[in-house]
Amino acid sequence: MDHQYIKDPMAIERKSFEMISAELGEKNGTGLKMDMIKRVIHTTADFELTGLLQFKEGVEDRLLQAFKGGATIISDTNMIKAGISKKMAHQLGVEINCFVDSEEAHQEAQEKGITRSMAAIDIAARLPGKKVFVIGNAPTALYRILELIEQNSLSPEAVIGVPVGFVGAAESKEALWTADIPSVITKGRKGGSTIGVALVNAVLKEAVKDIGK
Amino acid sequence: MDHQYIKDPMAIERKSFEMISAELGEKNGTGLKMDMIKRVIHTTADFELTGLLQFKEGVEDRLLQAFKGGATIISDTNMIKAGISKKMAHQLGVEINCFVDSEEAHQEAQEKGITRSMAAIDIAARLPGKKVFVIGNAPTALYRILELIEQNSLSPEAVIGVPVGFVGAAESKEALWTADIPSVITKGRKGGSTIGVALVNAVLKEAVKDIGK
Repeated sequence: MDHQYIKDPMAIERKSFEMISAELGEKNGTGLKMDMIKRVIHTTADFELTGLLQFKEGVEDRLLQAFKGGATIISDTNMIKAGISKKMAHQLGVEINCFVDSEEAHQEAQEKGITRSMAAIDIAARLPGKKVFVIGNAPTALYRILELIEQNSLSPEAVIGVPVGFVGAAESKEALWTADIPSVITKGRKGGSTIGVALVNAVLKEAVKDIGK
Repeated sequence: MDHQYIKDPMAIERKSFEMISAELGEKNGTGLKMDMIKRVIHTTADFELTGLLQFKEGVEDRLLQAFKGGATIISDTNMIKAGISKKMAHQLGVEINCFVDSEEAHQEAQEKGITRSMAAIDIAARLPGKKVFVIGNAPTALYRILELIEQNSLSPEAVIGVPVGFVGAAESKEALWTADIPSVITKGRKGGSTIGVALVNAVLKEAVKDIGK
């Protein structure tokens, strides 16, 4: 059997975004926030997320400036770390860290009697420089970020808080949204690593364009 | 502010699966196939997938036997590779490979005038031993698997074909479903790396239990 299919990844992506724009109809628009929404749809094929994504006023510019300034990304899952474009991050001098499987996180979690996801946030908080957190899985990681901010031990540029799940996920995102922190969330249960990655990669793309690389 | 939240990951997972079982209502059931469906819901919070997932008769046992026999997993994305449980894979002697970013795939794609995703499949097809493919992103990777099977250059134990997207994804999964290959697919546009990972990890869990580790 002869399978006929488009083999040009750029053509596939272009056509996909045209279809997404068309299906968004009157909700379609331009600008970085819209790019972020469309990339999430592209990565999930789930238009319900259009209504679930919430952006704090100006957070997209805050993320853009952070990445143009070479901020460090900290994720709660290795999937997010794997999915963020290494090429674009490298062009911007952006490092991507995930400490959840590190020996240090194991040890610190045991010593403090907390989850490894929480210990991984504590480790990240001690890094120097500007930080953007991307949480796709662990509500406990998101709560830990909020606790450290309240204790003045952490001051992130922005937090992408999109944990998915049935226990604690929605509540943790609601707590982030209530706090005075530049953030992006997905309301309710939906979220996940691919959504976090899509939001980051959309901003990285704009940042790379801005610096003319 | 004092944030009250469950900090025991095992308790969170247990409660999550109880909620999923309850919400599935009369669609709820037991067995490995049901475990796979529930883990997909757990990872997406998207109950629509219950109706989109399709399993070829007996594919879950075929996957189980493959993993118990130490088959090699080949994924099209680094996110899938990152998300599959290394601990369980290691206990079973299952290796996880993704060649899409390899130097070899770059070179082979240029030489043959194909996508890197396709070249990565060609490289994987030349590996010795039993293979399970997990495709979460690239329709071209899935079509390449079908082409190699038709050319008798590849005979995988099973294919988890869940690419997400607007151009070619649904068609590629339909082509896989039509072929005489043990497979799991998601009908239509939805799919993605997290879904591929959930399906694999559900089977790995059962396999580890079976071998008594």
